[in-house]
Amino acid sequence: MEKIDKGDQILLYFDNRRKWLVSVIEDKKFHTHKGILDLEKIMDLAYGESIESSLGYKFWILKPNSCDILSAFKRPTQIIYPKDAGLIILKLGITSGKKIIEAGTGSGSLTSIMAQIVKPNGQIYTYDINKKFMSIAKKNVKKANAFDYVKFVNEDAREGFKQSNVDAVMLDLADPWNVVPCAYNSLKGGNPLASFSPTINQVEKTVSVLKENGFINIESIECFMREMHIEKGRSRPISRMIAHTGYLTFANKIYCK
Amino acid sequence: MEKIDKGDQILLYFDNRRKWLVSVIEDKKFHTHKGILDLEKIMDLAYGESIESSLGYKFWILKPNSCDILSAFKRPTQIIYPKDAGLIILKLGITSGKKIIEAGTGSGSLTSIMAQIVKPNGQIYTYDINKKFMSIAKKNVKKANAFDYVKFVNEDAREGFKQSNVDAVMLDLADPWNVVPCAYNSLKGGNPLASFSPTINQVEKTVSVLKENGFINIESIECFMREMHIEKGRSRPISRMIAHTGYLTFANKIYCK
Amino acid sequence: MEKIDKGDQILLYFDNRRKWLVSVIEDKKFHTHKGILDLEKIMDLAYGESIESSLGYKFWILKPNSCDILSAFKRPTQIIYPKDAGLIILKLGITSGKKIIEAGTGSGSLTSIMAQIVKPNGQIYTYDINKKFMSIAKKNVKKANAFDYVKFVNEDAREGFKQSNVDAVMLDLADPWNVVPCAYNSLKGGNPLASFSPTINQVEKTVSVLKENGFINIESIECFMREMHIEKGRSRPISRMIAHTGYLTFANKIYCK
Amino acid sequence: MEKIDKGDQILLYFDNRRKWLVSVIEDKKFHTHKGILDLEKIMDLAYGESIESSLGYKFWILKPNSCDILSAFKRPTQIIYPKDAGLIILKLGITSGKKIIEAGTGSGSLTSIMAQIVKPNGQIYTYDINKKFMSIAKKNVKKANAFDYVKFVNEDAREGFKQSNVDAVMLDLADPWNVVPCAYNSLKGGNPLASFSPTINQVEKTVSVLKENGFINIESIECFMREMHIEKGRSRPISRMIAHTGYLTFANKIYCK
Repeated sequence: MEKIDKGDQILLYFDNRRKWLVSVIEDKKFHTHKGILDLEKIMDLAYGESIESSLGYKFWILKPNSCDILSAFKRPTQIIYPKDAGLIILKLGITSGKKIIEAGTGSGSLTSIMAQIVKPNGQIYTYDINKKFMSIAKKNVKKANAFDYVKFVNEDAREGFKQSNVDAVMLDLADPWNVVPCAYNSLKGGNPLASFSPTINQVEKTVSVLKENGFINIESIECFMREMHIEKGRSRPISRMIAHTGYLTFANKIYCK
Repeated sequence: MEKIDKGDQILLYFDNRRKWLVSVIEDKKFHTHKGILDLEKIMDLAYGESIESSLGYKFWILKPNSCDILSAFKRPTQIIYPKDAGLIILKLGITSGKKIIEAGTGSGSLTSIMAQIVKPNGQIYTYDINKKFMSIAKKNVKKANAFDYVKFVNEDAREGFKQSNVDAVMLDLADPWNVVPCAYNSLKGGNPLASFSPTINQVEKTVSVLKENGFINIESIECFMREMHIEKGRSRPISRMIAHTGYLTFANKIYCK
Repeated sequence: MEKIDKGDQILLYFDNRRKWLVSVIEDKKFHTHKGILDLEKIMDLAYGESIESSLGYKFWILKPNSCDILSAFKRPTQIIYPKDAGLIILKLGITSGKKIIEAGTGSGSLTSIMAQIVKPNGQIYTYDINKKFMSIAKKNVKKANAFDYVKFVNEDAREGFKQSNVDAVMLDLADPWNVVPCAYNSLKGGNPLASFSPTINQVEKTVSVLKENGFINIESIECFMREMHIEKGRSRPISRMIAHTGYLTFANKIYCK
Repeated sequence: MEKIDKGDQILLYFDNRRKWLVSVIEDKKFHTHKGILDLEKIMDLAYGESIESSLGYKFWILKPNSCDILSAFKRPTQIIYPKDAGLIILKLGITSGKKIIEAGTGSGSLTSIMAQIVKPNGQIYTYDINKKFMSIAKKNVKKANAFDYVKFVNEDAREGFKQSNVDAVMLDLADPWNVVPCAYNSLKGGNPLASFSPTINQVEKTVSVLKENGFINIESIECFMREMHIEKGRSRPISRMIAHTGYLTFANKIYCK
């Protein structure tokens, strides 16, 4: 049984709609509609065990995954959803040890996911021009225990990246096309770039600029996710879903002179 | 510029529909409809450069990602698609250093993806009862340079896993419900299990058995992916798509005595 | 210009989110957050013209379509959505003059749509065991100006239909399988039946009973609809959508002695 | 039992993948991979009965619906799919007696569907500049028994429609925006227009021109359809689907002096 340590992030689970990401801190209470939980007592427990609230309700202590951690983030901007983040990870070939440039940081959700995967020897270089976003993102990335693998650069990505020979570039910007030439310069030959954009017009412009700036193998996709209600004899998709987050575009750098 | 080494796996790109995963081996020729390529000459090149075929066509040398590697796998069974694999990675919290049980191995596609991410200190324990599948999977996983991080076990997962305290369990079986109790025993408390099944009836049965065997936080989802045709003034989704691969179910182990 | 008559149903349009189906009645006022509208004054206007509210806002008078009429229905039960209703119309071959059995009536939404299409010489025979639903449905169907083409039967469809040789049968029931044998008896040879069910388990049971009761050409489908946000340079799908209403199953009767 | 008449269109059904729309003509044979069928013998049968081929296989005689009829059309252009046609019918309020302008005719698929519904007193005025398309469309519409309710106009819709005060206008053109002003002139006030376009860029341009030309209540949608494989204990969506046909845009005419 894995004991819970001071400072651990746990997922407190009441039911599928009520679960919270909580940092286990001494002397702290966690208030819910189903009563108060004494976080200090949790330090005597193991993952998978339960704790009772002041009102006698059972709460379970689960290991949070990347998606749980994201859902607790402060979000000054739209976050990248797991369905999109998962594809970005695979299509950019992000694995342990890789060096990745990200622009912009936003709330740091994808930053955290990528950092968790490139550790211990890889690195995420994340750029955002917005001071406030970056400050929130730093806190979020710390919360996700990913701070050591991220370098935050509070500069305008359009003026260029300081890193070169990185393994992949991820763009989550309103105007990704303006950063494509810098991305080209910083990227290893043959290696991939990804871009996330909500509107089709952004995708059109990005693809057009990628074609003119030494990228090939360009593809754009959209990913949907639908939850199922599974119950013996009454199984069906749920009634409402997120209809759209954005389009993903992928491409590879070539030396084309 | 990153030089190509003997034994490297490269993605030879002609256009979006014609690209091949190729191992760079001395004295070997690669035959295409657009002419023959001399792989020995590729060893003088760098990723991102191009080579001419005997018929004068240009082929580009790109860095393959996990998805490219999968697409070249021999497939005795249905493979897990990137859209699903990405979500599995995030929902199971798979990162560098994790120990994961997978049953069954199938063609080794998800095995390879997971192994690339848990390396260098993590490990995938993959079970398959089918000898022929496992032999093909071994070759596929080698091709993906992931062999060192995978332990292949040619046994019936229903009879139990030898590992305990693993970080996550992934089930890709026709009868995942039969393996849920063994999965419970091998999994750390609070930690996640995932299951992939094509039919809704399998999902119903799996969810029901998970509920009775100490799992909570159960959710089932379906993920879709649609490619876009992006062209200035003529952008639209493409006409045909994969309509269904399977449903994903996730859950966490609790101690519920 | 088509004048508005007393008793007409109009669509009062303020913007895409604020539009109301209104019956034009003398001496009546219509209250909105943007002021009061004097319906009597509307009788001097034509479709396509506008009227000013007491607060000086412009409201447009549009011709309502079947979808607008549905959206104003009282809904004791889930209604059939336009995306599903449209397919039912085409797959059941519903056109002017056809005789159709519907079970159950629900809120009368599909009843109204079908009645509008079979008029002036066709007929809808609609069955519902629930008195309260049927009473609401009658009001709704009147509102849709479709009352003359509908016969309401407040009986249990499982005990049989009185009509025979009908052109098509539509089932919108919790247990459609119990009505399949009666539907068979009332249907012309070679002709179609449709069934709407929210869960996959209902579909499985219905299809199985259809196969055993003289139906072939059985197909089940699901239809999705996603709204687009169209704006020059900022076009994208909207963020949220209805993920699921139900599955549609179609089949044809044969004489299989 | 409804007898089959000379000239009837029947749906000859072998299994869900092999069914044909056939005109019952004396002295004619119908050749299939499962043997030859003597159509003359069919005239002694009723809908719902079966006939044996020369090789002893059973073929069933079903009543074709609009979708079956479409599937047998010659298609010089993309046809409007049932999922889209159904929504068009409902959103344009097409019912018995309505007068509708359609531009362009294409293969006449939507023309036939609409004509079947507006009969006996309504009328479809369908425009196409392409002589060859119109000639094929005429044959297709005849095949669908809808010829009497359609007026074919082999002229350029951009130069204006001769009809005025029509109940609805349907545009299925490469450049719908060029026809919007003519559509406005021919349409009754408050009444609806629909437009079908494959690309998002066409939709953007159409919506923009609709806004500038006296249309409100503008909405654009996309409709998807997925078939299900239903089998006791093995139910799932099918593996492949049509990913995109086109976007539908709807709007209503106002007098906006």
